[in-house]
Amino acid sequence: MKEFWSQRIRDMVPYVPGEQPRERKFIKLNTNENPYPPSPRVLEAILEAAGESLRLYPDPESTALRAAIAARHGLDSDQVFVGNGSDEVLALCFQAFFTPGRAVVFPDITYSFYPVYCALYGQDYREIPLREDFTVPLEDFLGNNGGVVLPNPNAPTGMAISLADVERLAAGNPEAVVVVDEAYVDFGAQSAVPLLDRCPNLVVTRTLSKSGSLAGLRVGYALGSANLIAALNCVKNSFNSYPLDRLAQAGAQAAIEDEAYFRATVDKVAATREWTTTRLRELGFRVYDSKANFLFASHDAVPAEKLLLGLRERGILVRWWNKPRISNCLRISIGTDEEMEKLCRTLEELLGGA
Amino acid sequence: MKEFWSQRIRDMVPYVPGEQPRERKFIKLNTNENPYPPSPRVLEAILEAAGESLRLYPDPESTALRAAIAARHGLDSDQVFVGNGSDEVLALCFQAFFTPGRAVVFPDITYSFYPVYCALYGQDYREIPLREDFTVPLEDFLGNNGGVVLPNPNAPTGMAISLADVERLAAGNPEAVVVVDEAYVDFGAQSAVPLLDRCPNLVVTRTLSKSGSLAGLRVGYALGSANLIAALNCVKNSFNSYPLDRLAQAGAQAAIEDEAYFRATVDKVAATREWTTTRLRELGFRVYDSKANFLFASHDAVPAEKLLLGLRERGILVRWWNKPRISNCLRISIGTDEEMEKLCRTLEELLGGA
Repeated sequence: MKEFWSQRIRDMVPYVPGEQPRERKFIKLNTNENPYPPSPRVLEAILEAAGESLRLYPDPESTALRAAIAARHGLDSDQVFVGNGSDEVLALCFQAFFTPGRAVVFPDITYSFYPVYCALYGQDYREIPLREDFTVPLEDFLGNNGGVVLPNPNAPTGMAISLADVERLAAGNPEAVVVVDEAYVDFGAQSAVPLLDRCPNLVVTRTLSKSGSLAGLRVGYALGSANLIAALNCVKNSFNSYPLDRLAQAGAQAAIEDEAYFRATVDKVAATREWTTTRLRELGFRVYDSKANFLFASHDAVPAEKLLLGLRERGILVRWWNKPRISNCLRISIGTDEEMEKLCRTLEELLGGA
Repeated sequence: MKEFWSQRIRDMVPYVPGEQPRERKFIKLNTNENPYPPSPRVLEAILEAAGESLRLYPDPESTALRAAIAARHGLDSDQVFVGNGSDEVLALCFQAFFTPGRAVVFPDITYSFYPVYCALYGQDYREIPLREDFTVPLEDFLGNNGGVVLPNPNAPTGMAISLADVERLAAGNPEAVVVVDEAYVDFGAQSAVPLLDRCPNLVVTRTLSKSGSLAGLRVGYALGSANLIAALNCVKNSFNSYPLDRLAQAGAQAAIEDEAYFRATVDKVAATREWTTTRLRELGFRVYDSKANFLFASHDAVPAEKLLLGLRERGILVRWWNKPRISNCLRISIGTDEEMEKLCRTLEELLGGA
């Protein structure tokens, strides 16, 4: 009935995250989590931080964590903003950089949270159709936009654009902020961080949920010029002074500092992705070239929804959207080699029975 | 220079939290933290949750934590909303319940985050002056308001209103949501939770940062009708699906379930508050009757700012605002008995040297 709800919230259609099953054990290939555990150093750091000091507020500026992130990327600390997952960081970007009346653009097929942020903040937007093959028609993103948001690699396609194209985006929107959502970049795409020096309107967002194996800890960050990061801090300090608790700050710092572990994990996931792509193509799937920790695939013989349900019955969760252009595609997160073997065998069965 | 900042953010003046010193050891009586550590069960629960499962997203609905909170308050789980500290919960209340054009009211002397939320969300507001003695002129809050926000006890005065007055507030604003911010209620004021059954427009917000000794874990919550809680979920799911990480959910649940520990801690703080009030009055301070874990006090002989600086030099932090009506008052958090002894002796010295 929505009595007492504010006008704008009455009309909201929230984002729906992938299922987090509790009742049954699934092979979980539906929310792009990392199949490998976080670095042992993360757990050590959390155990050390879990003491009497929890009675005290955390550092509102996450100073040590931001310094570690800055060091990893070769930036200054004032070029780093941290938040409670990259969803929060992205939401704050929409508030910090976009102004109602000047439409923000993003692809028609992309992370489905972007239009929800726009609705929440009363921000105008325009969806730009990807090409038939889901590549990005870059020229359509240039011009007098109110802002640009683009994941690289894109979700749910997994397809990446080049560094040169990111630079064209930033240069071609000189009066607007270009947000490149690099949630999945570590698995094989080129990061836009080296462009930050010469693109004052570029912001890169990142998460520890995927390559950092820390979806359960809720830490994301943004990188950009000190000027743009100051805008994000202004929003944050007008909303929630302490978005990262003491344990999240300590654990995230340890994850960032253990670059060798992170690199090894990411390499394993990428290798699994490559052979899985080959196998699925052998089974007759169209599989888009993925630089992420998931695959986007369709099959002419069996509808995606049927495969989704068949996999689920057999204990495997993947993700499917009943949306134009992609309703015959499944997004399949990359699990361990064993899990992907199981997936391929199960799909083979399902196709055999088609 | 603020190039590329959105129009609204350019004009924002963020909230400024109390100092979190890192360089030196202070007696910290400036941010209303609990002087006692969290329950040992909290630490056990965190250690148990700090494992490989951190690679997986947390439960987006914090089901177990919400059930524990519901059980403590004798409510249903769908009457409980949880967030990343009560600041986030309050911000989401401003989005969920208030509509630009219909002014929200709160006292002129109160938690200084409220007008910041209004600015962030483009919400109109009106500050209603407290009486000369800082009591709440309840009749001034009744009528056709767009919403009401009132901490009980109020901050930074520490003064409480009765349950009957909260009910008058809710009944006297039948078309608006009344948010009672009970951050400090456990230390001696009457909670409005028993009114929820008969006041469909009432929301109570709470935090684990004060009475729960968990400022470092960032957990707050709201209680209300299932209808109002659904509005908060709609905002949350349009902003950040997973605001509470796995460790925060586990630790907060343990804190809520260990009611005996919580009760003992709160009683100790209240007892310390009572004798400290007496001692400060003996030193010539005007001390407002506090039901919170802090005191609000002024002295005719020495300006508050001078006391603030004198205390700081001697290793004690308290809070002071250079604002109309309260610029001669200090807000002093209740520490341990030893810390408050030290505070009283130091104030005595500072007054002696006046």
